[in-house]
Amino acid sequence: MVSKTLDTPYYAVIFTSRRSDVEEGYQKAAQRMLELAAQQEGFLHVDSVRQHGHGITVSYWRDLESINRWKQQAEHLQAQQQGKDEWYTSYQVRICKVERDYDFDMQRDIPTL
Amino acid sequence: MVSKTLDTPYYAVIFTSRRSDVEEGYQKAAQRMLELAAQQEGFLHVDSVRQHGHGITVSYWRDLESINRWKQQAEHLQAQQQGKDEWYTSYQVRICKVERDYDFDMQRDIPTL
Repeated sequence: MVSKTLDTPYYAVIFTSRRSDVEEGYQKAAQRMLELAAQQEGFLHVDSVRQHGHGITVSYWRDLESINRWKQQAEHLQAQQQGKDEWYTSYQVRICKVERDYDFDMQRDIPTL
Repeated sequence: MVSKTLDTPYYAVIFTSRRSDVEEGYQKAAQRMLELAAQQEGFLHVDSVRQHGHGITVSYWRDLESINRWKQQAEHLQAQQQGKDEWYTSYQVRICKVERDYDFDMQRDIPTL
């Protein structure tokens, strides 16, 4: 799930959330949204981690237009509404321009002797 | 751990990582780095979640200078080196400008009837 570096600049949507205790429909919808996002034009990558009801999902996009289209996608709009009504007690969305990135990979950066 | 919105623009450092199987020293150092970051000039907030060895930590900063100072902070430099040597098999760091944010809070946005 961990993405490699991409050609900057690109855009990130940081979605931090706190879950309610409503489980019904959540897992399936969350998985469906990850899959649906990946099919959108301009989508680059997504990383998502949840622990003790706190989640961080970061999706990466080629440009702001792609992010706006995804926000207005019909099935996604429905999930956003259900998210507010049932699955989340609070969340934050941050739209970011990724200006610089770098990475470390043990297998590449620490050659075995 | 979930932060509220802040005055844009500000900056985010998205740190995604995959852990090695080395446990020794990791928890203590990870906790210490969160505390130490919070003491730095220009620090705004941090969110951190780990699940099945995959982690996402997003720290928020007032400006790029604050991020550069934190990257060069002595104790942090030591932790970065130990991270490469022992705790992580791979990681990515992304420096982002947060251009827009919005949030939802059930208690504020859905008043009880």
